[in-house]
Amino acid sequence: MDFSSKLLENAVYEMSQLPGIGKRTALRLVLHLLKQPKEQSVRLTQALENLRSSVKFCANCHNISDVELCEICASPKRDKTLVCVVEDIRDVMAIENTGQYRGLYHVLGGKISPMEGVGPQNLTITSLVNKAREGIIQELIFALSSTMEGDTTNFYIFKQLHGLDIKTSTIARGIAVGDELEYADEVTLGRSILNRIPFEGSLKLN
Amino acid sequence: MDFSSKLLENAVYEMSQLPGIGKRTALRLVLHLLKQPKEQSVRLTQALENLRSSVKFCANCHNISDVELCEICASPKRDKTLVCVVEDIRDVMAIENTGQYRGLYHVLGGKISPMEGVGPQNLTITSLVNKAREGIIQELIFALSSTMEGDTTNFYIFKQLHGLDIKTSTIARGIAVGDELEYADEVTLGRSILNRIPFEGSLKLN
Repeated sequence: MDFSSKLLENAVYEMSQLPGIGKRTALRLVLHLLKQPKEQSVRLTQALENLRSSVKFCANCHNISDVELCEICASPKRDKTLVCVVEDIRDVMAIENTGQYRGLYHVLGGKISPMEGVGPQNLTITSLVNKAREGIIQELIFALSSTMEGDTTNFYIFKQLHGLDIKTSTIARGIAVGDELEYADEVTLGRSILNRIPFEGSLKLN
Repeated sequence: MDFSSKLLENAVYEMSQLPGIGKRTALRLVLHLLKQPKEQSVRLTQALENLRSSVKFCANCHNISDVELCEICASPKRDKTLVCVVEDIRDVMAIENTGQYRGLYHVLGGKISPMEGVGPQNLTITSLVNKAREGIIQELIFALSSTMEGDTTNFYIFKQLHGLDIKTSTIARGIAVGDELEYADEVTLGRSILNRIPFEGSLKLN
């Protein structure tokens, strides 16, 4: 693309560095900002700047938080013996939205992925293992995505926890509620049969 | 969405004000920026700030430009008697990319659209009419999109030019090069028959 203005070209280039934003979309977004009142782009840039300069992570669960200890970790109503291990804040938000979980979280900050140069030292695994050694945690629920990277991470952490008296589990994989069996993929359907649950248990859930 | 951080919520909210960016995408973009080195978000916010504070528009064609008179208007190679009227900078870039046009442009900054509160006074129509009165321009090519708003704008400008000795034309509408007739919509196909071009003319183009 040939731009008539270096300033515009620069803004479009930086915008197109965001994931899923190509050059054309970036141009559309930047031109939109130019058409809006100046305050809108000021608000956007300031919100991004403030976040980047003042962002904090909860000292206990490593979730993004404005204070030292996040709301969930600080709440006396939460079950501190139960910890759910997730990849990032989006997973915390998704699980919180279900309203079904009363334990704490541990945000890893990603998955082990040699392809993307993410090793165990880039994640908060040491912090998790240290917490586990303190003896308060009784159960760890692993809720990483079921990809090769997710499984690798699960396995790595599992090895690190060797010798500790902690119950570990992963979230159930199976057919989504309301889904038709015939459209489910084979792996999921296979797993949902292998990991079938006793009938009374499934009735209790509803 | 329930956010664990006000700073994050704010950044996501401002990001989601951009067109085509929903809350989820905004969260994805903001979390991506958080994961990248700080320099990337600094570069993005600075590029946007610089653009917003220092953006200039060409005094002649109203295109975005870093200098008083844009490259195209300043070029001695360009035919100053021929002016193509377009909506915004993207159209200029698209036409420039064809390499087929040697005249100047006039960027309106939008189309007349009562639904969106855009009237003739919000566009650079007066400037176009004044330029036309100066007597240098011999032909105006209208290249607005063929929507109701585009046609309204064309018609409005056409009325304003009444009495001036200027040739006006619009870009040809028809079947795209390489397209199959059977998949073309009726309006386009109809127009391409009505506005058929003499055979020798069409051969000359290739």
